[in-house]
Amino acid sequence: MDYPDFIAAFGSVVEQCTLAAATVWESRPFSSIEDLHQAFKAFYESLPPQLKLAQVRCHPDLAGKLTKMGKISAESLSEQQSAGLLDLSTSEAEILSALNVRYKEKFGFPFVLCARENKKQAIIDGISARLGNDVATEMERASTEINKISFYRLKDMIVTTQSRY
Amino acid sequence: MDYPDFIAAFGSVVEQCTLAAATVWESRPFSSIEDLHQAFKAFYESLPPQLKLAQVRCHPDLAGKLTKMGKISAESLSEQQSAGLLDLSTSEAEILSALNVRYKEKFGFPFVLCARENKKQAIIDGISARLGNDVATEMERASTEINKISFYRLKDMIVTTQSRY
Repeated sequence: MDYPDFIAAFGSVVEQCTLAAATVWESRPFSSIEDLHQAFKAFYESLPPQLKLAQVRCHPDLAGKLTKMGKISAESLSEQQSAGLLDLSTSEAEILSALNVRYKEKFGFPFVLCARENKKQAIIDGISARLGNDVATEMERASTEINKISFYRLKDMIVTTQSRY
Repeated sequence: MDYPDFIAAFGSVVEQCTLAAATVWESRPFSSIEDLHQAFKAFYESLPPQLKLAQVRCHPDLAGKLTKMGKISAESLSEQQSAGLLDLSTSEAEILSALNVRYKEKFGFPFVLCARENKKQAIIDGISARLGNDVATEMERASTEINKISFYRLKDMIVTTQSRY
């Protein structure tokens, strides 16, 4: 793959972060999905603390305003849809919105969860449970979730890409 | 403005870099366009060298493959269009493409220019002239151009945003 194809394929492995793919490109070639995933993980882990925090903040609230505005990646939209987050009842939407607000007030960054692994009720339960943690635990957990999101996206992208070549 | 509105308005001030807006958000409130522009400039200048290089690489080749694939921001598309780069003749396209290749071979990153300030012939002349520089000069020049691009985008976005509120 040349650079434009690489960016077109992997620009959204990390949400809203073409910079990740542009950095990872330096470490080519990659021998497996795991190898490529490790490079994306290493990019994220190497960010200075204030950029890591800003990158967590680049994740939209699940079922939140940026999601409704369509200002998120196609991948995030699809993940939220598969979890049932795009057709919440009024009361579910109110509960999730209130939990998102409480989470951000406590931690200073949005609740990040790999929506692919959860359905809407598990997500609502998850945010409630995680509200009991401390900031360091949640920052660590956000990293874990971001790496899981990246891995699923890579798997999808590589299947999609292979079928095109 | 709340955070989602800020990201929706300013997510593309730096090409492909929502992370810039998510970082700059921390420094609010801003008293003027210049004040906000300084915050975006400070974000870029504070990037570690390997991330700064990757961010330069997040700029598409003018009239290049990512541009043709539509994998660039709406802002970049509009800037390239206003410079006449989206309707080059076959020979102009070949010349620019060959110059882009030579530039990247020499410097290791794409030619970055504020297309808003130039028309296609001036851009072709500019890339030819800049091919004579050394890497450090061109890295510095890329920063200058990125800051000019950001300033014009901010001016447009703030006019657009004010008219919506």
